[in-house]
This record gives sequence, C-alpha cells and structure tokens, in this order.
Amino acid sequence: MGGSGMGKLFTISTFGESHGRAVGVVIDGCPARIPLDERDIQKELDRRRPGQSELSSPRSETDQVEILSGVFGNMTTGTPICMLIFNKDMKSADYEGIRDRFRPGHGDWAYQEKYGIRDYRGGGRSSARETIGRVCAGAVAKKVLGKKNVKIIGHVTQVGNIRAVRFDPDFIEKNPVRCADPEMAEKMADRIRLARDNGDSIGGVVEIRATGLPAGIGEPVFERLDAEIARAILSIPAVKGIEFGIGFRAAEMSGSAHNDEITREGFAGNNAGGVLGGISTGQPLVFRFPVKPTPSLRIPQRTVDENGDEVEIVTRGRHDPCIAPRVVPVAEAMAAIVLLDLWMQQIARNF
Amino acid sequence: MGGSGMGKLFTISTFGESHGRAVGVVIDGCPARIPLDERDIQKELDRRRPGQSELSSPRSETDQVEILSGVFGNMTTGTPICMLIFNKDMKSADYEGIRDRFRPGHGDWAYQEKYGIRDYRGGGRSSARETIGRVCAGAVAKKVLGKKNVKIIGHVTQVGNIRAVRFDPDFIEKNPVRCADPEMAEKMADRIRLARDNGDSIGGVVEIRATGLPAGIGEPVFERLDAEIARAILSIPAVKGIEFGIGFRAAEMSGSAHNDEITREGFAGNNAGGVLGGISTGQPLVFRFPVKPTPSLRIPQRTVDENGDEVEIVTRGRHDPCIAPRVVPVAEAMAAIVLLDLWMQQIARNF
Amino acid sequence: MGGSGMGKLFTISTFGESHGRAVGVVIDGCPARIPLDERDIQKELDRRRPGQSELSSPRSETDQVEILSGVFGNMTTGTPICMLIFNKDMKSADYEGIRDRFRPGHGDWAYQEKYGIRDYRGGGRSSARETIGRVCAGAVAKKVLGKKNVKIIGHVTQVGNIRAVRFDPDFIEKNPVRCADPEMAEKMADRIRLARDNGDSIGGVVEIRATGLPAGIGEPVFERLDAEIARAILSIPAVKGIEFGIGFRAAEMSGSAHNDEITREGFAGNNAGGVLGGISTGQPLVFRFPVKPTPSLRIPQRTVDENGDEVEIVTRGRHDPCIAPRVVPVAEAMAAIVLLDLWMQQIARNF
Amino acid sequence: MGGSGMGKLFTISTFGESHGRAVGVVIDGCPARIPLDERDIQKELDRRRPGQSELSSPRSETDQVEILSGVFGNMTTGTPICMLIFNKDMKSADYEGIRDRFRPGHGDWAYQEKYGIRDYRGGGRSSARETIGRVCAGAVAKKVLGKKNVKIIGHVTQVGNIRAVRFDPDFIEKNPVRCADPEMAEKMADRIRLARDNGDSIGGVVEIRATGLPAGIGEPVFERLDAEIARAILSIPAVKGIEFGIGFRAAEMSGSAHNDEITREGFAGNNAGGVLGGISTGQPLVFRFPVKPTPSLRIPQRTVDENGDEVEIVTRGRHDPCIAPRVVPVAEAMAAIVLLDLWMQQIARNF
Repeated sequence: MGGSGMGKLFTISTFGESHGRAVGVVIDGCPARIPLDERDIQKELDRRRPGQSELSSPRSETDQVEILSGVFGNMTTGTPICMLIFNKDMKSADYEGIRDRFRPGHGDWAYQEKYGIRDYRGGGRSSARETIGRVCAGAVAKKVLGKKNVKIIGHVTQVGNIRAVRFDPDFIEKNPVRCADPEMAEKMADRIRLARDNGDSIGGVVEIRATGLPAGIGEPVFERLDAEIARAILSIPAVKGIEFGIGFRAAEMSGSAHNDEITREGFAGNNAGGVLGGISTGQPLVFRFPVKPTPSLRIPQRTVDENGDEVEIVTRGRHDPCIAPRVVPVAEAMAAIVLLDLWMQQIARNF
Repeated sequence: MGGSGMGKLFTISTFGESHGRAVGVVIDGCPARIPLDERDIQKELDRRRPGQSELSSPRSETDQVEILSGVFGNMTTGTPICMLIFNKDMKSADYEGIRDRFRPGHGDWAYQEKYGIRDYRGGGRSSARETIGRVCAGAVAKKVLGKKNVKIIGHVTQVGNIRAVRFDPDFIEKNPVRCADPEMAEKMADRIRLARDNGDSIGGVVEIRATGLPAGIGEPVFERLDAEIARAILSIPAVKGIEFGIGFRAAEMSGSAHNDEITREGFAGNNAGGVLGGISTGQPLVFRFPVKPTPSLRIPQRTVDENGDEVEIVTRGRHDPCIAPRVVPVAEAMAAIVLLDLWMQQIARNF
Repeated sequence: MGGSGMGKLFTISTFGESHGRAVGVVIDGCPARIPLDERDIQKELDRRRPGQSELSSPRSETDQVEILSGVFGNMTTGTPICMLIFNKDMKSADYEGIRDRFRPGHGDWAYQEKYGIRDYRGGGRSSARETIGRVCAGAVAKKVLGKKNVKIIGHVTQVGNIRAVRFDPDFIEKNPVRCADPEMAEKMADRIRLARDNGDSIGGVVEIRATGLPAGIGEPVFERLDAEIARAILSIPAVKGIEFGIGFRAAEMSGSAHNDEITREGFAGNNAGGVLGGISTGQPLVFRFPVKPTPSLRIPQRTVDENGDEVEIVTRGRHDPCIAPRVVPVAEAMAAIVLLDLWMQQIARNF
Repeated sequence: MGGSGMGKLFTISTFGESHGRAVGVVIDGCPARIPLDERDIQKELDRRRPGQSELSSPRSETDQVEILSGVFGNMTTGTPICMLIFNKDMKSADYEGIRDRFRPGHGDWAYQEKYGIRDYRGGGRSSARETIGRVCAGAVAKKVLGKKNVKIIGHVTQVGNIRAVRFDPDFIEKNPVRCADPEMAEKMADRIRLARDNGDSIGGVVEIRATGLPAGIGEPVFERLDAEIARAILSIPAVKGIEFGIGFRAAEMSGSAHNDEITREGFAGNNAGGVLGGISTGQPLVFRFPVKPTPSLRIPQRTVDENGDEVEIVTRGRHDPCIAPRVVPVAEAMAAIVLLDLWMQQIARNF
C-alpha cells in the first residue's frame, strides 16, 4: 500500500489533484450488503465543500460524487467502491503568478524537493481538495458503523484565543463555525471575519467525540486505537497535533487525580478519553487537535522562487480565513474509517 | 502485519510479556553491511532500564540483549535480526493480590475485554517492558541513520507544572530527569520525590529533536512524516498526545505570524517543526508529547474485580513515580525507526 | 490493503465490474518524472481487448483509457495515478437469462457464497474485464522498467495438445494466437476455430520471458521473486498453475542434471528460470502457466439456480473460445508490476 | 512487513540462519484462548527434522521448540507468540571448504549479489532450516483450524519418474517417502537410495489436500485463495511451480470436459481443485508442486569462487538425496497459515 492508502481490512486509496481532472477514492474491503447510494455520500461532501457561508472560501465547488463500482441495486457488493468527483470551477490562472515561487507554510517547497516535479495549480496533491476522497470513504464507513449505532460528532472548540465553554451538540451544524457553544460561536465568527478582512487567517482547535463503541477495539502494541487515530488525524492537512482525553494536561497531574477509577457502573471519569492500553473502553472516544491558520494570505510574505531568489508572494486564490470548521467533517471521516477498520480486525479474531 | 508490527521496509515485530520468559524484537529489512554488535544495543537498553537512579523504580532489571540472527562477523547481513532479552528479577508474587482486580489507568480491564484472557503478572503485554524491543530496534535504526549523521535527542521539558526554560543538550544525560535545563532539573527531581513519598505519581512532557534530515522524507497523503511519527509515539504506553513545532499554540495564531517565511538561507523560523505537507523540510524535526502519571499507586483506589464487585486496590509493584525520563530513549527509538523506514521509501523512488 | 490491491512500493488498486459504469486502477508509488501519456496505456489495452481477430470474442469493446491524476505535463508526479475506462457496448440483457443460475467453471456461485450478493451482469467483478486495470498499471510499470532496458515478452506455447517448438519472437504479435512458432500457430488457430464452431472452448499455456534484469531482485524468504510472480499470475482469471524454468520436469531429474553450473561467463544453463533462492540471477526470468478453457459455452451444461434446483444453462454472451492469447498482455503486465515493485525494494536497501 | 513476514491478520515473521544461534518465528494475530503447548509444536517439528529415516540426512537436529511469549496457562492470549529453536549439532567446519565458492543450484551466489554479504555456514538464511519457523507457525494455525475440523494432508506423488497411483492416507506417515501408495512408496525409496549412493539427488512432486473448508475463503482479485497459496508454496526452498486441481492438464481440455457441473448434491467433479474465482467452493482444496533435486552433491560440479575463478565444488554437508518427503510438513504448514489468515479476513466482513 502506498502513501495515499490506509487501512488493513476497510482500506482506502485516494487520488487526484486540486486542478486535475478529478479527485476520488477507492474503498476496498467494505462489508457487503450495506445499503448505499450517492445521497449518503453527497450529504457529507456538502458539509465539507467551500462556499457554505460567508466565513469560508467563496469558491463554488459543487463536488458531485459519482459511484463507479462496488454498488449494485443500491447495496454494496463487497467489491471495491470507486467514487469520483470531477473538478469544476477551477481557476488555474490564479496560480500562474506563483507557479515558480513557493508559498510559506505550504507543502509546495517540500513536494518539489521530494518529487522534483509538482502540479503547482491550486496546490496540486497537497491541496485540501485531496480530503474529498476521505470524506467519501468516511461517509461509507459511517453508514456501516451506523448498523451498530456509533455516532461521531465533531465541533470547533477554539478559534484564536476564543474557547468554547458549553457543549450543545444540536447547535453545531446550525452555525458556520461548527461550534457547540452558541455564545462563543458568534465571537469566533467575529474573529474569523477580522482575519479575513485583514487578508490574514487564524487557527483553531477541533474536538471529535465518538460514542456507541464497544470495549475491545484497537490492536496493541503499535496499532493501538489512539495511535491509529493519531496517524489518521495528523494526515489531514493543517493539523499539527492531537491529544486524547485530558491530553497535555495529564503532564501536570498526579496519578491519584488522573486515574479514572472503576465502579460497578463503569469508569468514574474519562480522563483517558475512551482508550486504555490502546484499546477502547466503551466510554466515548474523545480527542482534540490544533488546526493551523491557513497559510495562503493576501498579506505579502517573503519567500524564494525556483531559482532560490528572494521574492514577495501574495496568494490570490480563494481561501478560507479559518479552515477549522471545514476540517470537522474530514476528521469525522478519518475517525470513522479507523474505527471501522479496527473493529473489523477485532471481529476477525472471533474464529 | 499484526498489531505488534510496524514499518514497510525497515520493519519491526515485538513480542514478550513482562513476566514471561523473554521480550524482544525481530527487525526485517535492515540494510546489509552495517557494523553492529550487542554493545550498540546494550548502550540504549541501559538508558531505558529501571534502577538508574533513586528517582526510578528500584527493580534491578539488567536486560542483557542477545542477538540471535541477522548479524555475521559483526555486520548486518540484510536478513532478519532477532534480539532477545530474557526476563529476570521478576517478582510475580507481587501481582497475586491483584490478579483478579483491574488497576485503574492501566490496560488490564481493556485487555481482558478484548482477548477474554490476560497474563496479569506485571501487566503482561501491556507492561512498559514491551518497550525493550522497541529500544533494541531503535538502536539499530540509529546505527543506520548514523551513516548520514542524523542525531535524535530527547529530553524532559515538563514535570507536573514545572517547565524547562533553557536547553543545554550536554546536560540531559547527566541528570536523572533527563532535563536539559540544570536549574529546573533539580526542581523536577524534587517534584518526583514528592510524588514518590506520597505513594503517588506525576506526569510530564518529553520533547524530541532530530537533526541532519534531508528534505523529502514522508509519504503523503496518509504516511506523512508527522502522521507516522504521531502513530509511533502514541503507541508508547502512557503517551496521551503529540504536537509538532509550535503545536497547539498554532490555534491562537494568525497565518502571518505562524507561517515560516523562506529566505535565501532557508526557512526564517520553524513553527512547522520540520515538516510541511507531511514531508521533511530539512529543518530539525521537533515534537513534544505528554506522558501521563504512572497509574500504579500505593495510594488506595477504587476499582472492580473480575466479578464486577467494587474493591480497593493498592499496587505493590516497584513503579516509577514519573515515567517521562525513561520514556525518552523509547521515543528516540520510535523516531529513529520511522525516519529510517520513510527515508528508505524515498530512496526506493530513485529508480 | 484490500484484496484488490497489491504491491509494497509500486502499488496498484483495481476496481470495477464488467457491466458497471467503469473499470480502472489507481497506482500509488510510481516514481516521479517518468514520461507518460495515454498512448502508452492505450497501446497495451489494445492488445488486450476483444475483437482483435476472428479467433476472439466479437465484442467491440473500445476501452479508451483516461488518466485522471498523477500526471502533469505528460510526466508522472509521484502522486497516485488513476486511470479509468468507461464501460461501453455492454449487453446486459444477454445475462438476464442466467441471473439466477450459476455458470459452471465460473466464480458466480463462489461470489454469491462469499458476499451474499453479486452483480450478475457479465460476471460482475469476476469478469475478465477486471484485468483492464492491470494492463493499465502494467503499461506504466513497463514504461518505468524501460529506463533500465527490461523487456517482457509473452507468447502462447500450447493450445489443446498442440505445442510450439520454435521461438521467433518477432512473429508473436503477427498472429492472433500470439504463438512464436509460425507453423504451430496455424494449427493452434485451427484448434481454436474447431472449439468455437462446436460452441465449446479450449485451454492453453502461456510463457513469459523477462530479460534485462539485474541480479538481486526478490525479498526472501516469503516475498521471493518467484513467489511474488506466482501470486500475481495465479490472480489472473483462468490461470490454474505456474512453473519456473524447467518447472515440473525438475521432479524427474537428478541434481547433477538439474543444477545450472557456473562458469566464468555466467550460468551454463537456465533450468532455474532466472531465480535462485528467490532472488533474480540476471538470467532471463522464464515461467509458464496453464490457462483453462473458457467456461462460458453454447453447449448446454447442468447447473443449479439460486433455489438450488437443477437447471440447464447455455451462455449466450460473446466469449473467446480460447482466452490464452488475450491473457498474454495481462500476464506481461503482472510481471512488470511485480518486477518493478521488488526492484524498488532492492534500491531502498542502498541506504 | 518485510520479506520474511507474511499474512494480514494471522501474521508470521521468521528469523534465523542455519548455523546462527537460533531459528524461530513470531506469530502476531493468533486468536486468543486457543489451547496450546510445546508438544503441539514439537509434533510437527519432529515430522520435519532430518534423521527420521535412512533416506534423509543423517544430521541429528533435535530441534526442541521453546515458546517464549503469547501463551499463558497453556492458552494463547492473543499477543505475539515467539517460538525459538536453538541451533545444535552444527558442523560449520564442513562449510569452510566452500566459504568462498558458490554452490550451483543454491542461493549462495544470488544472496551475495543481493546483500553484498552472506553467512556462508550451512547456507545461512537460504538454508532449509529456515522452514523450522514456518512449521512452528503452521502447527499453531493447524490447532486453530482444528476448531473447525479442517484437515490438511500432504503426500509425495512422484519421485523421479515414479508416480503414485493409489491414495491410502493412512499409509503416508508410515513410510519414509510419505507416499500414499504402498507399492510405489517402495520403488520411490529405491530411487532415492540410488541417488544417495551415487552422491547425487532426485526431484519429486508433493500434493496437498485440505478438507473441511467452507465456501467463501479468498479475497479477489489479488488475494485469491489460489494466488495466496501459490505464493506461500513457491516461497518454500526448492519448489519450482504449482498447479491446482487438474492443473496444467487443463491446457489440453475443452471447456465441456473441464467445467465441473453443479448438481443438487454439489459439484460433479473437482477439476477446479476447490477454488473458483479465487474463492473456496467447499470442495477439497487440492494442489501439487514440483520439488527440485537437492542441489548439494558429492559429485563434483563446476562453479566459480568469489574472485570469479572457475573451480570445482564438492559438497560435504549432510544432505537429503530427495527433499520432497521433508517438504510435506512444511507445505502443510504454509497451507494452514494461508487458510487461517484468509478465513479470518472473511469473518471480519461479518460486521
């Protein structure tokens, strides 16, 4: 399996560049006889696409999915599911001015060093459009996990230095920030508008909660549930870290305060974030991760061109001033893919 | 490859339980003709073992490695290298009192749920002794990486709420906390002694810096350098998160402050932590991770036994009050293994 | 990686059903900066498609490939290459009569047992149309291998009990049987016509020769060159075995007759077929495999339907009376894919 | 996973050289709570070891297995099972005379080309002693498969040009040739003695039959049951091919003769060898493979030394004149490992 593939049983392989002909994914290993049609996929894609609100990029990517294989009579057949989204509304001309200069904070320079060639249009393979395939695959994983009543909910807990306090899950999809705290959501929106108006951008934090998991998911010692989730989440562009449960704050705690005691009714707390020894405990799986500020700015920045000469760069593409809200469905998708794959591995042991 | 294996080209497979006959590792795919003998391995194992100072567990595990295969005339042959450490100084009787009750904060309960059976002695497979195999494999990876002058240095940056400020790399191995700040090292040692004297434990943070890497290491989109490092580090017992470069603080930053501009001399900063688009930039790879407080305590805690009845538990094993200092060589090992594996993948593309 | 994927560094993932919307492949891990355009692919596809002569199926599949990603300015970029062929000229109505009955010798029954569902049209995923993706990927692998002057030539050595004697490689693509012996080629063609006229089919044997390989390709002990080739070839529909070099005849030989002695000029023979200890010797890699007679017949056969009732079946689809000639380009493709993948692994060891 | 590893869920990783300290295997992914102790393993090892009769090598390898991990209270725990056999009765001095010259028909030369170094003693990693780890892993796989009443039986069907006719399974383990035909067994033994007395060797054919399999095992399109078996069998030293069911004879047959018709009672024949479309049919899985004559001979042969000079070579090690009988338990082991791994994958799909 190459670098654009992941999974052992429920496996995915994504492909496509931002301004190439199409982006998509092949799922191999999906259980058979799962009801599935394009609306299941489109629903999640619509949550990811830009242009959902004035806070995100004004690009009007419609991102219509087509299922090319693996589904017959609206049921999965167990064979590979290829899903394709043709690229439209591409404005490659926007990128002509920067084709020979590297955007700071982007993968441009590193791709050039690695491969000796790159499709510079719209970021090519390092574009966030690559995540479309992930969302498609995640939609299928969610459909399968739905059989067992697993729910995966993501929300933005921080934008700049504004932090959510309340958690009202019903509010998440009702505001463009995808914040679960109605009061802070508005402040976050203001902060994003400020960045946008400055030609700048702002970072954020996303939290994912998965409920309905049984105990026993995760394959020690290396394919631990938390380790696999960490890899999947860190593979999302712009994500710079992750923490489970109490996370980095565990460093400040004593064991007597940190340990989740066990009672007849179950664990007395969830500092562990739903995973112990790399195995799910049946409690909610909870993790958070920082999303860096979008690197493409209208503010001029110093960089070099392909000759190594110092130049100034201004990005004219249509970018989100804060990408965290749109990362939410991507992260949910990655969590769903990992959970299903590990769960299937656990089932396999029931020989 | 099972859950106890990792890697694509430089692959490792660990085995062994804490109080079983032996722990060890098989490396498959090591380049041939690398000078190697048992002293190369022992040196790293000695950094990991308990009993190095009064701050760590008084267990006197000597952990003598034996190389069983893959080395001929003190040179690697390219065939699998099996390294074995027989378990000694095991006091399984210490665990008889807790064989039917689950330690809070440990993997005991989850292992039982997952497998329906567990070796309860010393934590069995979920014991930190499992990391011995990782350190052996990491010692080999370091030896190979040494050909290219890669250096991987780990140190403790936080214990409880005490944070290192200075960074004096030469001081790290001269103090039992493995802190690079002489002044704070002493305060951290005091904090650990306090925990120990209370029968409690305390968490910490470890930072790893790898220098000497070329640009181009990492396989987008899923096998990104940062994603693979994240998986490897999160697979270490007690680690609850990770962040690269500026990490979680990126959430508070604007793009104009966060982006590392590029000059003729290279990047003007390293907020990225040495990785962009999942590919190494040639800057130092820098990441940090929280280590939770050791869960085994002499302070009584509530838990349940195998019948589900509530009981009290006191752990009498000989445990480290703060495990962070001993995690340092383990994390260095994991980083070395990942870096070598991804680097070999990059070389393979030079067809 | 799922069952429709293969490879470690040069990896492929195929998808698509015979009468679905499309068939295709994603290649992940192709070296960058390889010149590539659709004509490179089409040339090989045209060798595979039916309707090339009166000896093969009269289906007029044009099989036009489209490259959707991974190529920029007619150069590979190192990112995943998705290639797609939309299905046309499908006559699904031909299959309505057999949708509930299982064709003897086909995968129909086994697919139904495995997945509990199947796309019965044209054989669905078990159709030989699945091999289109392989040929596309093989065309890319051949292009890469071409840099090192590797040549892979396949030809039909047997049809029914007619065996080729001479080997004139230039004649292979000049006759519809792809036989390298002009005299026997005509007899084989007659044998195929006889089968066709009877509403029956006939088996054959294909041989592949790869030249220009260096010594050292193959990863003992399980990923031996011959073992990996065997897996790849046995994964082709209708193939029932394989033999390398002298093959099954080795069973009758003494060691003194079988061993290829070594002289200053190299090996004195090639009974080994170019592989020793699972590693290429630099001699030509030579292997042969039997192709069973096409199972779809106009002659009535006994079978059962989905209710388990005995019925008669007559297949009205347009099938090749002997599939061996069209298996040739597929087998060449599989060989190319395996050779490139293992070669890249060998290069990776040059750390 | 490296070249010495195989499997997706039930995975194995072998290690060890012929005259190194030990050979062995790590199994990762074995289902938990399978009763297992060293006698289960030793029983199969004893079938593999030399010195079982006057027909095999007089080496007195006792090959005592030790289970180092993964078993607790004579039950598997689901964690990695490491099994070790220390090498004894090694006569490395026998190999001093050939340390700088390459044995024809052996992997010596190819290993040297590939790795630039080799442990020449006893063939090092390319020795048949490497198969010990496979037999250990196969014994565990057989134990697991035994839960479902799967039986795997191997026997020698040909030695030189002597072919077995009858099939009396009870006779197989009662004769040193492991032939199921009492009359031909004696003739085969004579043929082997003749080779031995001449300082020569002789080839053979082995057949494996696995019964008790359900329909549905095998993962199209690349991880087909037959393809995976082929890879596993071709990875055994000295094996030069494989055929399933009617095998190479399919080339001579018409479809009407070859197809196994289906009746209410099941398939009317088993030309397919138990696999259709790469998926088990529930019929016996039947395959055969040629075993080349042992290359190490007392008869002088031409070869070159490390300087490329032509020299004569005579092998004084204690070798089997016909290795086919001892390959039988190795091939059974490989079949068991593949079947269990693919079966577990099928179970995993029952989400």
